[in-house]
Order: sequence, then C-alpha cells, then structure tokens
Amino acid sequence: MCGIVGYIGQNETQQILINGLQKLEYRGYDSAGIAIITEQGLEVTKAEGRLERLEAAGNEHPLVGTVGIGHTRWATHGKPSYINSHPHVDNSENFAVVHNGIIENYMQLKEQLISKGHQFNSETDTEVIVHLIAEHYNGDLVQAVQQTIKQLQGAFALGVLSSYEPDKLIAVRQASPLIVGVGSKAQYIGSDIPAILEHTRDIYILEDGEMAILTVDAVQIMSFAGEVISKEIERMEWDITTAEKAGYDYFMLKEIFEQPRAYRDTMRGKVKVIGDAKDSGVSQQSGVEIREKIDEEVAERIAKQADVNYGLPAILQVQIEECKLSVEKIQQIEKVHIVACGTAYHAGLIGKSVIESCARIATEVDVASEYRYRSPMITPRTLVIVVSQSGETADTLAALREAKQQGAHVLAITNVVGSSIAREADDIVVTGAGPEIAVASTKAYTTQLIAFFLLGIYFAQLRQTLPQDKITNLVMAVEQLPALAEQLLTTEKTEQLAEIARRIALHHDLFFIGRGVDYAVAQEGSLKLKEISYIHSEAYAAGELKHGTLALIEQGTPVIALMTQPALFDKTMSNIKEVKARGAHVLVIAYDNMAEELAKTADEVFTIPMTEAILSPALSVIPLQLLAYYTALTLGHDIDKPRNLAKSVTVE
Amino acid sequence: MCGIVGYIGQNETQQILINGLQKLEYRGYDSAGIAIITEQGLEVTKAEGRLERLEAAGNEHPLVGTVGIGHTRWATHGKPSYINSHPHVDNSENFAVVHNGIIENYMQLKEQLISKGHQFNSETDTEVIVHLIAEHYNGDLVQAVQQTIKQLQGAFALGVLSSYEPDKLIAVRQASPLIVGVGSKAQYIGSDIPAILEHTRDIYILEDGEMAILTVDAVQIMSFAGEVISKEIERMEWDITTAEKAGYDYFMLKEIFEQPRAYRDTMRGKVKVIGDAKDSGVSQQSGVEIREKIDEEVAERIAKQADVNYGLPAILQVQIEECKLSVEKIQQIEKVHIVACGTAYHAGLIGKSVIESCARIATEVDVASEYRYRSPMITPRTLVIVVSQSGETADTLAALREAKQQGAHVLAITNVVGSSIAREADDIVVTGAGPEIAVASTKAYTTQLIAFFLLGIYFAQLRQTLPQDKITNLVMAVEQLPALAEQLLTTEKTEQLAEIARRIALHHDLFFIGRGVDYAVAQEGSLKLKEISYIHSEAYAAGELKHGTLALIEQGTPVIALMTQPALFDKTMSNIKEVKARGAHVLVIAYDNMAEELAKTADEVFTIPMTEAILSPALSVIPLQLLAYYTALTLGHDIDKPRNLAKSVTVE
Repeated sequence: MCGIVGYIGQNETQQILINGLQKLEYRGYDSAGIAIITEQGLEVTKAEGRLERLEAAGNEHPLVGTVGIGHTRWATHGKPSYINSHPHVDNSENFAVVHNGIIENYMQLKEQLISKGHQFNSETDTEVIVHLIAEHYNGDLVQAVQQTIKQLQGAFALGVLSSYEPDKLIAVRQASPLIVGVGSKAQYIGSDIPAILEHTRDIYILEDGEMAILTVDAVQIMSFAGEVISKEIERMEWDITTAEKAGYDYFMLKEIFEQPRAYRDTMRGKVKVIGDAKDSGVSQQSGVEIREKIDEEVAERIAKQADVNYGLPAILQVQIEECKLSVEKIQQIEKVHIVACGTAYHAGLIGKSVIESCARIATEVDVASEYRYRSPMITPRTLVIVVSQSGETADTLAALREAKQQGAHVLAITNVVGSSIAREADDIVVTGAGPEIAVASTKAYTTQLIAFFLLGIYFAQLRQTLPQDKITNLVMAVEQLPALAEQLLTTEKTEQLAEIARRIALHHDLFFIGRGVDYAVAQEGSLKLKEISYIHSEAYAAGELKHGTLALIEQGTPVIALMTQPALFDKTMSNIKEVKARGAHVLVIAYDNMAEELAKTADEVFTIPMTEAILSPALSVIPLQLLAYYTALTLGHDIDKPRNLAKSVTVE
Repeated sequence: MCGIVGYIGQNETQQILINGLQKLEYRGYDSAGIAIITEQGLEVTKAEGRLERLEAAGNEHPLVGTVGIGHTRWATHGKPSYINSHPHVDNSENFAVVHNGIIENYMQLKEQLISKGHQFNSETDTEVIVHLIAEHYNGDLVQAVQQTIKQLQGAFALGVLSSYEPDKLIAVRQASPLIVGVGSKAQYIGSDIPAILEHTRDIYILEDGEMAILTVDAVQIMSFAGEVISKEIERMEWDITTAEKAGYDYFMLKEIFEQPRAYRDTMRGKVKVIGDAKDSGVSQQSGVEIREKIDEEVAERIAKQADVNYGLPAILQVQIEECKLSVEKIQQIEKVHIVACGTAYHAGLIGKSVIESCARIATEVDVASEYRYRSPMITPRTLVIVVSQSGETADTLAALREAKQQGAHVLAITNVVGSSIAREADDIVVTGAGPEIAVASTKAYTTQLIAFFLLGIYFAQLRQTLPQDKITNLVMAVEQLPALAEQLLTTEKTEQLAEIARRIALHHDLFFIGRGVDYAVAQEGSLKLKEISYIHSEAYAAGELKHGTLALIEQGTPVIALMTQPALFDKTMSNIKEVKARGAHVLVIAYDNMAEELAKTADEVFTIPMTEAILSPALSVIPLQLLAYYTALTLGHDIDKPRNLAKSVTVE
C-alpha cells in the first residue's frame, strides 16, 4: 500500500511533506513525489527509488508554497517508475492527485477520457482521477471531486489540489484508510498516523464515503453527496512506534488483522458478473453490489438452480486482466509446477489442491532450492507458477530463470510489482497484501491463497472443468472470505487463542495434523510457531503419524488437529483418538457444526465459519497465526524480528 | 528368509523338527512342512499358514522315524501355498529337499528336466534341486548332491534326505546361512541357531562352498568338490533370545548388519550379462562372476568406451522376470505415482529421483493416506507403484485399490509375496530383505531402494533414455553396493557412530539437512531417530532451513548434513555455514574425497565409500540407522519395540 501525506498552513510545505513521507518509509515503497502550489502554479517533484533522491531533487529545485501533497508508491498497477509515481497531474497541470487503492473501472474511464482528447502519461489507474477532476471542474473544486468519485469503482484514498483554489486541500476516503490531522493554522492528511504525528495528535479518522475540505483555519467533513457530517476529533496518545503499528503491539498482529482488507484488495477487479441466471441484463458490476441489490428478488429462484447456494443473484466468473496467457494456451496446459520457498511453498501446496480439483491439471509443488537440481521435465505446455512475497527470493528467482530457459511459461504470484521475479516472469498475479513488515509472513501467505483460488477458478472456467453454477458458488464463497475472516478476529476469538497459547508456551514440542488442504495449512501453522516461538513444532498428514512419529507423543504433548474437510471427518477423528490414547492434549480447529461431536474426544475445539472445503485454508490458518503470535508473546520474544531470520531471503 | 531344521539320531524326529521350527517362528513364515524317513519310506507332512496346523496334521498322521528335515517358508518365488511349501520331493518320492535362497537359473534347469520327463508340482525354484538329485542319483547320495549343486547358480542352503540312504542327512551352504549342531548320537542342521539350541551348543558354522554329511555318530565337512575340510566346533554360549538375534543386542542391529546380504538377495537374478562390449560370445552368467573371470583381460579396453568405469568387463542390463509389464506398456508410461507410508514413502522419494533421472518419466510421490482423497489424475498410462514391507499396510492397500479401480497398472514393491498388496497388485517386485522384526525398518527400506534402482535402470533400458554404457556402469555400481555397505559396518565405523550417538543422546532436538536424494535420506534418518530415540528430529531440504526453521538453531543444536552429491557441494556447504554461524554442532556424512575440505567447516565428518550419485542413499542411510540405534541404546530404550508403534500398520 502506498503512503499519503498532505499539508495546508502557513509554513513552507516541502520539508513537512518529505518528513511525513520519511515516517512512512518503514512500510516500503518504490518511488515518491510531492506537489506544491507555488507562485508559479502547481509544481511537482518526483523521484524513483529512495526518498533521499526526492529530497536531493527538492533541494536542487525547492518548491516554495504552503499547501501540498506527497506520496510514496508501492506499485500495483504499472511498474515502479518515475512516470508512474504520484502525484499525477492533468494535462493543464492545474490539478494534482495522490491516491491509495485500486480503481477497478479505470480502463473504461481511460478510454472515455482519451476519446475526449485527454493525453495519458502513466500506466496507472490513478491518472484517470485527475483527468476526470479537470474534466468536471467548473469553478468549484469540491463539486468536481464529488462528480469524479461518483464515477469511480474500487478503493480510493485521495489527496487533491488545484492551482485554481490554492486555499484548499481535499481528502477523500473509500475502502482505503485516510486521516485528517487538526492543528493551529495548519491541517494535515495522512494515510497512516505516523505521517502527521509530530505535528498534531488531534485526528479525524475518515470513514468510507467521507471527504474532508481542509483550509488553513478549518476542516469540514462531508459525505460524497455533500451533506456536512459532524464528527468527533480523536486524541491520539500513541508514540511513533505504536503509531507505525497502527496501535498493535507488533507488526505481525497488525498484519494478521489486515487480512480481511488484504483479501478484498487481492480479489478487487477480478470478479466479473455475467448477469443473473435468467436475466442477462445485469452486467459489469461487482458481485457484492449486485447481491445487495437483488438478493431478495432472485435468491429463491437461483437457489433452485444450484446445488449449494449463498443467496446468489447472478452468474459470477473470475477475470484476471493482468494474466496475459491466452485462453488457448490455458486450455493447452498439461502440467503445472509450483515453485516457492518457506511460507510461499505452503501456499503452493494449497495451490496444487485448488488447481487439481478445479482445473484438473496435474500439479507438482517444489521447494525452489530443490527444483533446479532435480532436472524437472518441462515442456512448452508446462506452466510454472513461482510464488514469492518480496519477488526477490534468490532460490525462487533462480528456479524461474531455469524454467524459462527450458521453455516453460512462468507466472509469478508476488506482492511486489517491481521486483525481479515480477519483471522476469512472463505473467504476474499481484497479491494485495501491501507492505508486510513482520518477518513471519501472514497476510502475504493468505493473499497468495486468494490468488490461487482465483487462478484455479479462472482456469476451470476457461478449461470448462467445472459447471458454471459451481463456479458462481466458488466465486461467491471467495467473496465471502473477508467477512468470514473478520469473524475470526473478534476479541472473543482472539482471547480464546491467547489463553490456549499460554499453555502451549510451556511445551517444548508440538504437533499439527490434518488431511488434504488441512495438512498444508498444518505445515504453515507449524512454521509460524517455529519462526517466532522457537517451539519445535512439526506438521504431519494425520494418517502418517502412526508410521513413526507417534513415538514422540507423550503425556500432555500438545497436538493441534485441523478438521475442515467434512468428507475426512471420520478418518481424522480416528487419528485424534490415536494421539489421545498416547496422552496428547488435543486442540481441534473445525467448523461450528462439528464442535459438539468433537468435544466428546478433543480437549478443546476452536471453531471457524464454514466455507467451501477447498477455500477453508484462508480461514483455518488465521487461528494458527494468532496461536503462534500469542505463544511468542507469552515467551517474550521479539515477534517481528525472530532470531536468525531475514524477511526476504536473497541468498541461495 | 525361510527356516531350516534337520535331525538325525535315535529319537522320534517329528516333535524335534516341529519344536525347532517353532523356535524360528518369530521370523515370520507362510507355510511349513517336514519330511521323515519312516518304515514306509520318505513321508511328508505340510500345512499352509500357522505351525499349529502342521502340528495338528502331524498329530493326526504321525511320521515315525529318526531322521528328518523341516522348513518354514517365506515366499519369494511362487505364492504362499500348500503346493509351494517345503520339503519338496522328486517324482519317485525317494528324495526330499528343504531350501533357503534363490536359484537364479531354475527356469533353464526346469525346462531341461521337463524335457527329460520330470513332472513339476510347484511354482518354486527349489523343486528343480530335488529333481536334479534324483536325476543324478546313481547309488551315492553325496555324489548326486555334488553333481546337482555344480549346476546351480544363486544362493542355497539345503537339507537333503533320501529313503535310499536313511542313515544320512546332507547339508549344503552357498550364500545362505546354515549351521550343523553336534550332539551325542544325534546331529542337527539349522538355518539359525535357535532352531537347535535346546539340543546342543556345539556348532559348525558352514561357510559358502561347504557341505556336511551327518550320520547318527558323526559329522563330516567337505567342499563341494569332495575334499574333506577340518573345521573347529564352536561352543555357542548364547541364550535363546540372543540366538534369535544372531548374537546382536537387538533385532534392529542384526537387521542393519544383514543389509549387504539383503542387497545381494534383492538383486539376485536381476542382472543380465549381454556380453563383452566387443565380444558378444559371453552371455547369461552373473555379472560378478564375469567380472572376476575376465576383469584383467578387458578392463582396459572397456575403460576406453565408458565415461565412468568400474573395471568393467561386459555389457550389463537389468532383467526383472517377475515384472509382467510388457516392453510396449513400459514405453507408453506417461507418469508414475509412487504411493506409500512412513519409511516406504521415504524409499519412494528416492524412487522418484531414480525414475525421473534414468527413465525421464514424471513421477509423483504421495503419502498413501493422502493419495486417495486428492482425487489423483490417473490414466491407463499411469503406472502406480505401491511400496510396503509387510504388504498389509492399510492405507497403501486402499490406495492400490483406488488406483486399480481408476484404471492404473499397479506394481507393488514388497517384502512379503503372499501379502494382500502382493496379491492384489498387477505386478510385483520382491525385496530380498527377509523377515524384518524390529519395528524400525532398516533392511526393508534399503532393499526397497535397490528395487527402485533396478526398476529405474530397467525402464531406462526399455525406453532407451540412457545409453548402454551408462546402464552398464549403473548396473555395475548397483552390484558393488553390498561390498561398499560392508565397509560401513566395520568396528571402526560403528564405534565412531556410537561415540557421536552418545553426544546426540543429550539433546532434545536435532536437524538433518540435505539436497536432492540427500534430502530424502535425511527424512529417513530423521524418522529412524524419532522412532526409537524419541528425540525430536526433523529433516529439511538444506536450502529451505533459512525460510523459517533456522530460528530453532541455537548454541550446540546438532545438525547432520548429508553431502553425497558432488554437484551440490558448494550450495550445501553454504547451508552448513548458515547453521554453524548460529551455533549448530555439525556432523557431515560425505565421501572420503570431500572429508578434508569439509573438516575445515564441520565439527565432524563421517565418510562413506563413493558410488554413483543417484545410488548413494543405499550407503548414506546406514550411518543414520546406526546413529539412531546407538542413540536409543544410550538412552536405554526398548529399541525393537518403540513406544506407541506397531510393525505393520493395518489400520488407516
């Protein structure tokens, strides 16, 4: 996610903006820029790379003025570059915008604007916003902004300036955070609190659908429709370190809680509504919107058409615009190799399940450091999917190069658009995790899962390996995941896990078991616990424990069993009984409807909301992340920087 | 391996034989029988299944006489059945033979005998022996036996009786153990000491190429050529439990030491000599024999033809007679699925490497309990290889059934011919491990490796994915493995490991690392240690440790690194440095020629003899087995019966 800062007041703006951006530096970025209204009008300074370069450029040609906006960019649409960095300006250079989020319908808007004579400079989705504002401007900046945001679909936190109205700074929030800081003869905006904390602790936290008009003397909050909103100022008592973590004790916890948002960002723009099952008039609106609108009218009718139903109003499909693989090529894929390391490898294990079960393509998953050396059999019909949060993982990059050299088409799932892996891959699916700072990966992993879910369904759709009603059900189920994930992040749920963690922390060894995708999630849960608690945990296919490792189970050994696959309930239950018989203390992660039955055997049951079996990892892993977190917390470890480990492993 | 007992003396023989067989019961068997010279001549009682059934049959129709032989059978050629059980008799019913071992050239001999009018009753290789003796008998049983064994190729421990010479019992040993017990007016033979220990402690241990003629009063030892051999009687001080373990403290140690023999038995009859590279006149003799005979003459000439050379005299190929897959079918295989549990699964991982690198068939390895539930993609061109020592592993059996139902051709690698898996598979490759009694598998695992080596080469040969010189080199290297394994079982080597084990025993956690096949062996080494020492060990692909688990390495944590792949030396070395930098105590298992370089970094180096990279697991795992053994011994555990575990897992 990008960083926004803005200032209007009586002092020189340039250094205030650069200082603010420096406070957001910890989050990562690939370019930065500022726009200030000077005596010459609206002027912009931008630089690719480190903030030092922006500062140097600023020192060389200082922009002198008292109102401005600044931005650090983390590429999502369009590669990292000077051209793509913010602020963006319109062709007249009278309007400037900084933007966090994703505009889903920017392609359509761009076409319309081009037909009206607008010239575009960047590959970003953001640029449409500033052109639209210029297009709508008719002597009233607020009105122009309001008309613009009516046309936008997606997520957007905006900072807007115009040289026509140099006394104003406009802030807009929709599905991407933005705050307004209130000072004395000085007002501020920021995507995150650290950006403005050194200036003021009095803050308005904007809600979705709210905008703010800042002047030197005052801040006015209103709805997108222009209704004035009376809002309380909040007094922020955090110090800068707490503010960086948005009030959480550790980045890891912050990132765990960011997952519902990250899921939404990853699937944003990737769900296509073909139309209602019987009424094909509805199209090109987000599935969620449609569902809200016509749920009652058609839910019953649709219910009769599908085996499983989520109150389904429309035919849904996946679209992955950034995936350049042709339909024909996707249909010709004979095998998939997924290659990754560590946590991303564990996401790949789920990817295999999804691709095999949805698209029926035989899929192998390899640890990247092993892949090259086993001389894998690659043909032009092999799709190699590499997965890496940072896009810089050395082993994965080397595997990518090997696969390309052997003629495979390589698709990268990564969180960093401008990374080496993103640049060298033939194709890329970007996860919407945003910057991940804790060494132990959480939201990067789960957004990789979302990417695999979408890819698996997309392939199934194009290869016609699933009927449309199943696809609609799956897509709808994917869309429900963020809301279901939120149900796992309530105080009640996290307290239950913190309590269990305090007991786990007393043990030296721990085992995770599960079958199918539960086994893959078990492996990730085990790795999380290892990474930050240093407890020797290990994951086993539930049926495999008795072939040796059962010898390690003794009185009180904690065993965590995942049971999200109803079809495997009995089998896994018998494995739970096996370990119980040897004295294990068993915690089961399962659906609510299994809890009663499980409580007869297990020592504890933690329940998660039900979803399609294949999608369950995006929910079941969350309690495991929290367990690892609270266990490490109990043990007093430095959670964000575990011993011996680096965030991005750039050596082989 | 089967069990042999024999008696000649003044007492009733039947119960002596049955008691002797009962003493061998712990080793497993599928049928049993006795032959006694009675007043009616040579009479036989046999029974399938448990010894109780033989005893019951004996009680119903007692055989009265003072000379007899008995046998418990563990099927290798021909399924377990009444017909195939020993003793076997000739058509005149004047000769009876019990046999342990394998006659490699029995098919040719059988054809010759049939052409001379002999009628065969069983599917065994053994039956040819008794027909040959009858054929050669000319009033002198000793001479007839000597003429017979001249014609035999392979391994054979024999007990021979004839009603024509009721005062004699003849014992023969070639590459299969046999002992003679000396009593007062009573002499005994046995394949193992427990069979006769209750009668006498004075024992001749026959060597290969020796035979013994037993009469009531005396035992005469001679060579196959008839030269009398003067041999010391050994006084056996073992109690029955020690005797069962052949003097080892535990079956596991006995079985580790049996591996060279088990390797030989597994490859017996599976190496075909096509002829010298330039001299195609030589054929159908064992590679070893040929090598001994013409090494010097042709080694130099051959050396010029091959990249790597082992003093190679001939063109060698693999033949797997019991594999009924047609050449055409083998050529059409598109993918291989290997399915197994526990240790056998680890053998499967090596199998994948061998099949992929030699025969270039894409191979997936699945844990059996997972295989069924992931709806694997199976076509008629999928070969499913199931691996199970006992042939009764419930998960593996279920996977086999699923695969067959979906149309796959299923080949079983198993140690028990009459097992459910052997019976239900389309095809079978038998490992020559013989009965494995310790719960922690050793020789069963390594003979599964030998089976995979042979299969991989066999497929490569038929699919022409390796040139003939490479195949010859590989076959020769496989043939050298038993001798190389023996080099790892010297007192010096085992003492080095026992010393290391005493230090390992002090730790709670331990990590194994390796790349490629070394990683697969690391997994097996780790499982062994877990099973019997209860130390929490875990194996990692060497390049993967830094993606999380490195957090568990602290001062003094033992790490065992396998380094048998010269091509990966530098990469693994950097991983060793990684763990060293975090304080790990590193033991490296590597080839002699790497020791000096490694000693600069590692804390300890244990060297193994060099072989072809792909075959190294059959050597590198032996020190890991011994480390597990000595660690458990240090900790005082019941090594043969570790807590919580069963030998054969017949539940899912």
